[in-house]
Amino acid sequence: MTVRFAILGAGRIGQVHARAVASTEGASLVAIADPMAAAAQKVADNYGCDIRSIDAIAASDDVDAVAICTPTDTHADLIEQFARAGKAVFCEKPIDLDLERVKECLKTVSEENATLMVGFNRRFDPDFMALRKAVDDGKIGDVEMVTISSRDPGAPPAEYIKVSGGIFRDMTIHDFDVARWLLGEEIATVQAAASVLTDPEIGKLGDYDSVNVILTTESGKQCTITNSRRATYGYDQRIEVLGSKGSVAAENMRGTNIVLADESGFHQPPLLDFFMTRYIAAYANEIAGFVAAVSGKTATPTTGHDGMVALALADAALLSVAEQRVVKLSELKVST
Amino acid sequence: MTVRFAILGAGRIGQVHARAVASTEGASLVAIADPMAAAAQKVADNYGCDIRSIDAIAASDDVDAVAICTPTDTHADLIEQFARAGKAVFCEKPIDLDLERVKECLKTVSEENATLMVGFNRRFDPDFMALRKAVDDGKIGDVEMVTISSRDPGAPPAEYIKVSGGIFRDMTIHDFDVARWLLGEEIATVQAAASVLTDPEIGKLGDYDSVNVILTTESGKQCTITNSRRATYGYDQRIEVLGSKGSVAAENMRGTNIVLADESGFHQPPLLDFFMTRYIAAYANEIAGFVAAVSGKTATPTTGHDGMVALALADAALLSVAEQRVVKLSELKVST
Amino acid sequence: MTVRFAILGAGRIGQVHARAVASTEGASLVAIADPMAAAAQKVADNYGCDIRSIDAIAASDDVDAVAICTPTDTHADLIEQFARAGKAVFCEKPIDLDLERVKECLKTVSEENATLMVGFNRRFDPDFMALRKAVDDGKIGDVEMVTISSRDPGAPPAEYIKVSGGIFRDMTIHDFDVARWLLGEEIATVQAAASVLTDPEIGKLGDYDSVNVILTTESGKQCTITNSRRATYGYDQRIEVLGSKGSVAAENMRGTNIVLADESGFHQPPLLDFFMTRYIAAYANEIAGFVAAVSGKTATPTTGHDGMVALALADAALLSVAEQRVVKLSELKVST
Amino acid sequence: MTVRFAILGAGRIGQVHARAVASTEGASLVAIADPMAAAAQKVADNYGCDIRSIDAIAASDDVDAVAICTPTDTHADLIEQFARAGKAVFCEKPIDLDLERVKECLKTVSEENATLMVGFNRRFDPDFMALRKAVDDGKIGDVEMVTISSRDPGAPPAEYIKVSGGIFRDMTIHDFDVARWLLGEEIATVQAAASVLTDPEIGKLGDYDSVNVILTTESGKQCTITNSRRATYGYDQRIEVLGSKGSVAAENMRGTNIVLADESGFHQPPLLDFFMTRYIAAYANEIAGFVAAVSGKTATPTTGHDGMVALALADAALLSVAEQRVVKLSELKVST
Repeated sequence: MTVRFAILGAGRIGQVHARAVASTEGASLVAIADPMAAAAQKVADNYGCDIRSIDAIAASDDVDAVAICTPTDTHADLIEQFARAGKAVFCEKPIDLDLERVKECLKTVSEENATLMVGFNRRFDPDFMALRKAVDDGKIGDVEMVTISSRDPGAPPAEYIKVSGGIFRDMTIHDFDVARWLLGEEIATVQAAASVLTDPEIGKLGDYDSVNVILTTESGKQCTITNSRRATYGYDQRIEVLGSKGSVAAENMRGTNIVLADESGFHQPPLLDFFMTRYIAAYANEIAGFVAAVSGKTATPTTGHDGMVALALADAALLSVAEQRVVKLSELKVST
Repeated sequence: MTVRFAILGAGRIGQVHARAVASTEGASLVAIADPMAAAAQKVADNYGCDIRSIDAIAASDDVDAVAICTPTDTHADLIEQFARAGKAVFCEKPIDLDLERVKECLKTVSEENATLMVGFNRRFDPDFMALRKAVDDGKIGDVEMVTISSRDPGAPPAEYIKVSGGIFRDMTIHDFDVARWLLGEEIATVQAAASVLTDPEIGKLGDYDSVNVILTTESGKQCTITNSRRATYGYDQRIEVLGSKGSVAAENMRGTNIVLADESGFHQPPLLDFFMTRYIAAYANEIAGFVAAVSGKTATPTTGHDGMVALALADAALLSVAEQRVVKLSELKVST
Repeated sequence: MTVRFAILGAGRIGQVHARAVASTEGASLVAIADPMAAAAQKVADNYGCDIRSIDAIAASDDVDAVAICTPTDTHADLIEQFARAGKAVFCEKPIDLDLERVKECLKTVSEENATLMVGFNRRFDPDFMALRKAVDDGKIGDVEMVTISSRDPGAPPAEYIKVSGGIFRDMTIHDFDVARWLLGEEIATVQAAASVLTDPEIGKLGDYDSVNVILTTESGKQCTITNSRRATYGYDQRIEVLGSKGSVAAENMRGTNIVLADESGFHQPPLLDFFMTRYIAAYANEIAGFVAAVSGKTATPTTGHDGMVALALADAALLSVAEQRVVKLSELKVST
Repeated sequence: MTVRFAILGAGRIGQVHARAVASTEGASLVAIADPMAAAAQKVADNYGCDIRSIDAIAASDDVDAVAICTPTDTHADLIEQFARAGKAVFCEKPIDLDLERVKECLKTVSEENATLMVGFNRRFDPDFMALRKAVDDGKIGDVEMVTISSRDPGAPPAEYIKVSGGIFRDMTIHDFDVARWLLGEEIATVQAAASVLTDPEIGKLGDYDSVNVILTTESGKQCTITNSRRATYGYDQRIEVLGSKGSVAAENMRGTNIVLADESGFHQPPLLDFFMTRYIAAYANEIAGFVAAVSGKTATPTTGHDGMVALALADAALLSVAEQRVVKLSELKVST
């Protein structure tokens, strides 16, 4: 069986998924939709697919699945539309910035018995998968603490920040999902600190650029997340898990692995500085995972529920900063 | 000028300082005191010094300085006795487990105009000194975030834990001091999570073995501290500082630096697994720093005030865990 | 302009180049030739190209270039046939195992004024390219010494060894080319040691499995090459260049970059263990380099002359082992 | 039993050994001899030992052992004098620059049944000892190839080079000894290349500054040694051993282990740049090994015979360069 895809949105991330679909065995790209004709045309030219409207795609008999790569504020509506149209849905995170809207949307997905996968790309990174496998294989015994360092090379433009939902919902949300994936136990409490240190403009927009979070589970496992919008040395993406028998850590990635030695010391190049190069393999694995799920071979790897809980954790972190206290996830009234 | 030392306490750490004094230029070891005759004799034999009682040392004309290496509950009394006796005092951390007693003790020190240095050995570790120098030299721009990973190879015996004041006052206190040393700005708030994950016996003693802490300063700089009483792979002591222009990190230390490669991969030995081997150079530098201060060449590198603030941060962390909220250091009523 | 390709040979390396051609901008795959119908069909199916005979390809108007991926003993004949047919020729190393035959073949290429590129993939590896760029940029000053460590995960089957021309012509030949590429000066002398240490069967075939070579240039620059047919920890491919101002080194590559720490130490996975995974990016760059040359944008990056000199160095190494002396490249009568 | 030492020569290396003796359990420093009164006085002051003439030391009843740290051209005479005087002798390498003189000297040592240890410090480096232990423990199976990289931070002064015997006898000699120590089989052949690349003055003195050597054993094990008198990034001292089951490598040492990351990449400090800091632990272990041998606890770890063979290998390397051929060690007529 081949899963026939349409991509909604021909922007940067839409192009990533178009390439991933085109190069995944068992998947084919049928159509692209984008209000910007030139963007759609470029994808159509590159991969030999049709250009169609979103509604036409929803009505297409030759489309089994869609990848939603449109702006965040359209996600929930499109998920509902395509769930109702009987298509399998892959949607970039987040489902919506409003937790209540997410709950409503997931209700529809559930009623339609639709397949929904939310794009948490990091779970599909080969290094992080190897790290998780070491944990699953019992190499470090029982998981006790997870440490996630996640720093962007630089802040996104103000226009993006305005509609991003803020650092916790936009950036930390990935780490919240990784934390749940690695702790192996649902998160019970959230506490956070947040500051504006890299650019006062970010503060003027009501957002933060530097945050630290501590998560705990019911049994006392802990996770710390450290985020900054600025790391001059590249895209800093590290995970370390401490267990009863040892620890396992994933190291950062560089474009080239050379070492220059001179009078001043030993020098290595900066890290890869962009999520599209850093996670190039992850995006391919992610679509392959979705295709396997749509083909009925595996369960959906990252569900709508995962998307909802990660957003709830972001909301809890915001509440923790506002009220300067530890917030219980149960206060957010998400089933876990 | 030679600073003539007496060591109070001939236990493990007393021996470390005896060796440091004996091998420091400008210092000489005059006397050792210990209620255990054999322990005192061993130090006397090794370094050719006298055995005297504590009171005799306080009255000795040929002693300029003492290093207090006795049990914690004697520290404050001894500091006061020797401050009054006109001796310069080096005291192992903590001054006392009770913050009010510490304040009282420091008042006496101040009235006597005495020199008091508290033994925060990490500030004297060559790698951490090089890291701090990189910060001072502006290599990473303005400090934004400090990340401290500090894990013991294994928990101390129950007897020790009972009198230790708990993990925050016994273990994290070092990291609190390092945080202050690197943030370059006084700490304003403390929040913490604490669990018992490595050994239920520790929980029965009312203590924790796994903690994470977030500190913030007035201007929003942040520091995270992660502690565990168990790291199977050795004594894990890492610091990373993120700044506006980059980051600087100190790596862990091994006894030997070989790499074995075989079918199963590449293997390096575990870390040094004991503070006395890991910080051997730090202990020597620490005494040298004290000698320089006593000789009037430099200011006292780690003062009684440093000891007090670190203890207050530990108390704040405990309060944060108890009340599940962010605690302001000002609540502890320590002048900073 | 699009360079229209035919691939001669649908074996392992033919498939690598088919994929490289298919994914290179400015290149298209028109035809595949292979006496094994199934192998040819597989490539035709994967990339939507024709199946044709070698002679038909030589006569095809819609083919601009061929990639020769057939057994070594056919290379020289095919190069001549396609040079005469007016096609640009990419040929896997070596041109031939006999130096005189190579000279003859290159004469034909020259007379036909044909484009011939020999496949020395390592020059196109991103890490080695970055290393070379550091040298070209003057980062290490004048090159003095090159150190090449090249070890296979395991020996090829006896059938392969029999027709390989021996380790110097089959394996070290890559390192000879890298040495020339990095020394920046033609090689003047060769001395070598060769043993059978990994498998006596290799010795029975008249070959070696463990060799070390020292090369010198006229001005005294030196290069050492160390080769083994067995490295249990993976495909070991390292280069280090020492210059007057410093050194630059390319490190080995792993499939995943995680570090597991436990009681026994710190562990990383073995290296990538196959040239097709280790040099996946190099193969793509190599074809892109050939396409650029055929399109007239650049000079041919690795020429027939490069192939001839590398083979002459292999012959010189064999002579050095046989006669236990330093051999001058000039004895081989290759113009350099 | 305490081994009572006299040190002959109060120069740089004499001071190293004086400190090592003073801090070694079971050893005491009784006397120092040096024609330069000030140098002798400094050692006497530092360690509280007598100043005596060499002849007085030879006649002293309270001296069990001497460490010869005088200029090379006095070594053989002093070894003979003290062997005859019934003292255990530790001598810095080389015994003499003339192989025949060495043979003669060893004959005397043998006739006197004296203890003679030659100072090949590298065998006592903790990392190299751990590497050797991994080999002995069978971690890498049978040894096949040894790779030694040994580069000095900078050339010694011309005055030193003139009396050094040349790079093979002065610098490579250490690596020859390490090769024998690790190959586990006597060396059969030597071939070498030698150039002047770092400083033409060295060439004018008839010496080389850049050499590569290949050694083989009877059974075909191989060792390469690469030497340069200049490595701008510090004192480069690496060893790698390849065996049938894997490899083991010793990494370089830095003074501090911090990593600075900024826009231009990741930076570590240069290597330790001096043999006295790099091998500080080795020197202590070396004297401890001598003391153990003199005390009858162990065999002499590095014998006069080791010193002779290493010198013969240096002579063979010179011959190889001169005659451009592989030289058999048997040509040098040293019993092995």
